[in-house]
Amino acid sequence: MSGQKTFSLAELAAALELEFRGQPDTQLEGIAPLGAAGPEQLSFLSNAKFKSVLQSTTAGAVILHPDLATDFAGNCLLSANPYLMYARASALFDPFTKPRAGVHPSAVVVAENVHNSVSIGANCVIEGDVEIAEGATIAPGVVIGRGSRIGKYCYIHANVTIYHGVSIGDECIVHSGVVIGGDGFGFAPGPNGWEKIHQLGGVQIGRRVEIGANSCIDRGALENTVIGNDVILDDQTMIAHNVIIGDGTAMAGCCQVAGSAVIGKNCTLAGNVGVVGHITIADNVHITARCLVTKSIIQPGSYSGVFGVTESAVWRKNAARFSKLDELYRRVAQLEKQLKIRDKGEG
Amino acid sequence: MSGQKTFSLAELAAALELEFRGQPDTQLEGIAPLGAAGPEQLSFLSNAKFKSVLQSTTAGAVILHPDLATDFAGNCLLSANPYLMYARASALFDPFTKPRAGVHPSAVVVAENVHNSVSIGANCVIEGDVEIAEGATIAPGVVIGRGSRIGKYCYIHANVTIYHGVSIGDECIVHSGVVIGGDGFGFAPGPNGWEKIHQLGGVQIGRRVEIGANSCIDRGALENTVIGNDVILDDQTMIAHNVIIGDGTAMAGCCQVAGSAVIGKNCTLAGNVGVVGHITIADNVHITARCLVTKSIIQPGSYSGVFGVTESAVWRKNAARFSKLDELYRRVAQLEKQLKIRDKGEG
Amino acid sequence: MSGQKTFSLAELAAALELEFRGQPDTQLEGIAPLGAAGPEQLSFLSNAKFKSVLQSTTAGAVILHPDLATDFAGNCLLSANPYLMYARASALFDPFTKPRAGVHPSAVVVAENVHNSVSIGANCVIEGDVEIAEGATIAPGVVIGRGSRIGKYCYIHANVTIYHGVSIGDECIVHSGVVIGGDGFGFAPGPNGWEKIHQLGGVQIGRRVEIGANSCIDRGALENTVIGNDVILDDQTMIAHNVIIGDGTAMAGCCQVAGSAVIGKNCTLAGNVGVVGHITIADNVHITARCLVTKSIIQPGSYSGVFGVTESAVWRKNAARFSKLDELYRRVAQLEKQLKIRDKGEG
Repeated sequence: MSGQKTFSLAELAAALELEFRGQPDTQLEGIAPLGAAGPEQLSFLSNAKFKSVLQSTTAGAVILHPDLATDFAGNCLLSANPYLMYARASALFDPFTKPRAGVHPSAVVVAENVHNSVSIGANCVIEGDVEIAEGATIAPGVVIGRGSRIGKYCYIHANVTIYHGVSIGDECIVHSGVVIGGDGFGFAPGPNGWEKIHQLGGVQIGRRVEIGANSCIDRGALENTVIGNDVILDDQTMIAHNVIIGDGTAMAGCCQVAGSAVIGKNCTLAGNVGVVGHITIADNVHITARCLVTKSIIQPGSYSGVFGVTESAVWRKNAARFSKLDELYRRVAQLEKQLKIRDKGEG
Repeated sequence: MSGQKTFSLAELAAALELEFRGQPDTQLEGIAPLGAAGPEQLSFLSNAKFKSVLQSTTAGAVILHPDLATDFAGNCLLSANPYLMYARASALFDPFTKPRAGVHPSAVVVAENVHNSVSIGANCVIEGDVEIAEGATIAPGVVIGRGSRIGKYCYIHANVTIYHGVSIGDECIVHSGVVIGGDGFGFAPGPNGWEKIHQLGGVQIGRRVEIGANSCIDRGALENTVIGNDVILDDQTMIAHNVIIGDGTAMAGCCQVAGSAVIGKNCTLAGNVGVVGHITIADNVHITARCLVTKSIIQPGSYSGVFGVTESAVWRKNAARFSKLDELYRRVAQLEKQLKIRDKGEG
Repeated sequence: MSGQKTFSLAELAAALELEFRGQPDTQLEGIAPLGAAGPEQLSFLSNAKFKSVLQSTTAGAVILHPDLATDFAGNCLLSANPYLMYARASALFDPFTKPRAGVHPSAVVVAENVHNSVSIGANCVIEGDVEIAEGATIAPGVVIGRGSRIGKYCYIHANVTIYHGVSIGDECIVHSGVVIGGDGFGFAPGPNGWEKIHQLGGVQIGRRVEIGANSCIDRGALENTVIGNDVILDDQTMIAHNVIIGDGTAMAGCCQVAGSAVIGKNCTLAGNVGVVGHITIADNVHITARCLVTKSIIQPGSYSGVFGVTESAVWRKNAARFSKLDELYRRVAQLEKQLKIRDKGEG
């Protein structure tokens, strides 16, 4: 890709505010994993387990914990938190450039409250009463409904749909295909079938939130669906109406949260975790991949509930037994009773 | 949001065809839950369990069952079905207004059979031979393929894609990001890899169907994929080719139905239920969240099959035991045999 | 739908390079299942299990294995692989026609490297440095980011989003709503919350790949996410950053592969299979529906790990017992010990 960026070791050290060791003018053109990095690339070692790779790496420079740097003769940047410094270096090397400010002539912008530093891409549709704050980027094909608000320096990627009455805080990133503010799933059984409950709430999203591609966040039934600050959601997340998610919580791909569930702060949900409706999950709860949370969780900690795969023949045999597990318990209880009775009889 | 609507208690009673009690000119500006509603808001009590909240509510008026109204001194609307009346009231208070009839100049409309009452938003693309009936709304960015048909008073939200040969009945709502009529997943193994089976069927959707954001309904292989009347599908539903879904069936978020499955009428599938291909589910079957239906279900009733989470350490211990469940059965059978033999020996 | 195609039996036999039996000028207008096909329709019998339907079919002609043709008096096309021939016939009968070459005037095409045989639909946005090869079709509303490459004869359906730095091989089909190249889910915990790890890798997709509607394939963190040749992915597939998928692998709807997982060649993942991150799956591995792969799989074969549904009351009883499975094992072990001790005492 065009737009490759190059830094000298000394420039990187200055930008990352780190001490370095080695040739200050070593030119670095990108980042690569330790085992693959060449002499023009920066790398990092964040896990002491992979320390041995240091001996053979051909990386131009490595971000390292000072404790591990003593055995390393190459160029390095010293940090107590190499992984965090890798994150910051990734921003420096990112060749992706934001489009320039301005409204593409093919965009349809009814809103008047768009800051002049905003970039609005081709074929966007921005309805009336929308507010788009300083420095935001709206990529091509985005549709934003009446009365919604996009915070400062947000990046709304191509083909996102934001319904009316949605508020997004500053510095959020919304990836392509995301739908925010679609109707929550509310229906009352009526004499002639389902009657729609109009969803009168909106969606309120905090600061520094990132939402992965093709995710959905539904509007609330009466009150808002609320996503806290620093929440990160991976692709294909589904957040139902009136869910509340606390600050700093992270959800890996394809998590699904049913209506009115409340999830605490700094939780981590691994991939495809499900949460049923109307329950509460405390702060600092960690759920392993694919599990379903069926009851409120009050204690912080790690929770699990699914099996990994095994050979199909073995699985089938055990699963068949599972269907008679209750019976097995009764048989064991019977055996215990028999032995006790006989023991007594013999005693 | 702009467009707030206000009704007096008497006006609401007339609109909902309900008796009321209290001050007829009480002005109501919206709906809120019973515990949160202020004097300008309507609320409702649909579950006698929350009856006690009635005593402390500050709601301007409450939709109530007559049996519960005897203890309530405030303004109220009397109904044998308060939840249904809440649904109807939600429609009255909804500030969202449909766009005006007409075709936005940026839309590309090849079709000639578009009723003059239809609204077609900016940047839509409507291919040839498409028919769009009276009162339908096609929001911005929607693409509709050749020969498809959109029924009366449908609302197709922004950035929906409808392929060719799709028929949608009257009064349907299709949320943003939905794809209808994409190819079913059909391939034959050939000498040089997979060979595509062209999907020659279409999709036929009944009346009053609602389809949640980012859902997919695939076209049939030879015959149509069929969605009955009054079917409601939440976000991220995935309906494979040649599935048939009976009238009135409801699926919460992220349900997944594999090819040629037939689902009866008035079924409810909770969130993220899966149904394997080529099976049949009877009418009035209810499946709890996240379950996988692997065989046909003939009897109406409630079906389950997943665990909720537990502490990871506890789960791991039990899961390890599960992998030897077949062995445990054999051990118990052996114990039973031993006891029997000895009992005989002792007898 | 308009555009129905008609072939005589002799023409079909020539096109499919098959021997036929019966009236060469029988006109066939489409394909239908054996039980439903009328005299103007072609059908096929690929599974000897349904042989009995042959006796009653009214199909105009049937693709048959020669062994089964001996008992059949009707028109037939003889093939050792009727299912593959059905796939090829489906291509012949497909009425869907590709749009003509040319760039729609409403499309915004910055790229210069677009072959003159390419069709670019209305409201597409093609950024700079994009390359689109001979015969490709880009349907309406597609957005393609800077520097990406679309191979020969690809079909990119409406409202697809392809980020920058994505490479798609020849003859791929990408269905509507797909997002390719969105950011992988990479964040480092920092002093003030999550810090984004910019995703500097791209996505590299092989030849003859098909990707189902609303799927997501994320760009790599440092290196590319890689999809091999002849890979077929159904709707709503989610492929995280740095995943590698081998040639010929097939995934049914809603599969989810976490970051850096490596999946071998010619694997089949049934619907909604999950694969955790950083594991490896060998070639020729088959995973049944909905399972979660939590560890590397070295041996080819079939793997399972989820229950089907059962009546909720039965499930609840067994599930309650499961939560004490470890205790049950201890009780059985205790019984075995007691019996042994007593046996010894009696011995």
